[in-house]
Amino acid sequence: MITLYHCDGARSFRPLWMLEEQGLPYELKMLPFPPRVFAKEYIAINPLGTIPFMVDGETKMTESSGICHYLGTRHGPTPLVVGVDEPAYGAFLNWMYFSDATLTFPQTLVLRYSQLEPEERRNPQVSGDYAKWFLGRLRAVEAATANTETLCAGRFTAADIAIGYALRLAGNIGLAKDFGPNVAAYWARLQQRNGYKRAVAAEQQAGVDQGVKARVRP
Amino acid sequence: MITLYHCDGARSFRPLWMLEEQGLPYELKMLPFPPRVFAKEYIAINPLGTIPFMVDGETKMTESSGICHYLGTRHGPTPLVVGVDEPAYGAFLNWMYFSDATLTFPQTLVLRYSQLEPEERRNPQVSGDYAKWFLGRLRAVEAATANTETLCAGRFTAADIAIGYALRLAGNIGLAKDFGPNVAAYWARLQQRNGYKRAVAAEQQAGVDQGVKARVRP
Repeated sequence: MITLYHCDGARSFRPLWMLEEQGLPYELKMLPFPPRVFAKEYIAINPLGTIPFMVDGETKMTESSGICHYLGTRHGPTPLVVGVDEPAYGAFLNWMYFSDATLTFPQTLVLRYSQLEPEERRNPQVSGDYAKWFLGRLRAVEAATANTETLCAGRFTAADIAIGYALRLAGNIGLAKDFGPNVAAYWARLQQRNGYKRAVAAEQQAGVDQGVKARVRP
Repeated sequence: MITLYHCDGARSFRPLWMLEEQGLPYELKMLPFPPRVFAKEYIAINPLGTIPFMVDGETKMTESSGICHYLGTRHGPTPLVVGVDEPAYGAFLNWMYFSDATLTFPQTLVLRYSQLEPEERRNPQVSGDYAKWFLGRLRAVEAATANTETLCAGRFTAADIAIGYALRLAGNIGLAKDFGPNVAAYWARLQQRNGYKRAVAAEQQAGVDQGVKARVRP
């Protein structure tokens, strides 16, 4: 059984969505945010104290897009992963790595220095710098979705999950108003997927069942 | 022929090191930093203006760790990549994604707000926040290298290249003094590799040949 540790709205939503799209059995454990403050016992499970954390037998992972990659290959084959011999393989890998390293990290700075930090540590210059940074990099998604339904390979893949989560987070932290028309339409399409809807429902239900309050975070 | 666009000391050093370890033929094109300011024609090649940029036939990629992953699989097989059926597969993937999303990005904030920005936009609070953040996450590398020569699978892999670059950058921006003993010894071992030395030599020679001045950057 795969176990996924998750905070509401956090980037652990990527593997949650992937699990739903693949139809794999899993257990979802909800934590309050930040777990290192509100669930100190979590450090014994994941010494970094970060979210996500996934356990699959002897395998333990902390990187949200990396877990999607792992699930699709170790528990594959699935069309959600682009194969090494397909023409879009390089593009697929690039979106997978781009999703967190290039898109999510700048978003965490916007959230941190505009909302999470105590008033005296907030910093509009830095949150502005990285809102601009995020939107600049998002031009790659705007270009890629100009004439296609999905990012690569002519089908829905884990790359759409990994990038899609960054768009979900953008909505939660007030950046979606600056989406270009292609990104806005692409994100609307992704939210219509049954797999996405099941992941959102699973997140909400687990929060209720486990008594963990929802709060937006990366 | 694989073409790699690189700035001295930048994270494009990851694929450069990977190319040398694999012994693949490649062309290295050096750019001044930032290219969007000092080499405006580069935007026609890579619309994001970011480094690295790799071209391999129809494949174009911008993510440094993702390019290493691509080279090792598309131009494999090589022991530099951990196979999907190996026990360390999940750990390998996690290090690959962790290297840039979790380690390099905070370093870019330290560099930006302590050195690159004009004096009036520098911010010791933010550079301090992310120096601390980087060193906190580096505890995972400290733990992983306590009793082994490399990060995973009992051999040198692309994960050591991807993480090793983050250690190189730490040295360049003044964070190496805070390395734990295992990380310091691990980084010293990596620098002894012939593949690493060849990559450093290739970077220096290309800078001289192409008349591009060295300057530290992410």
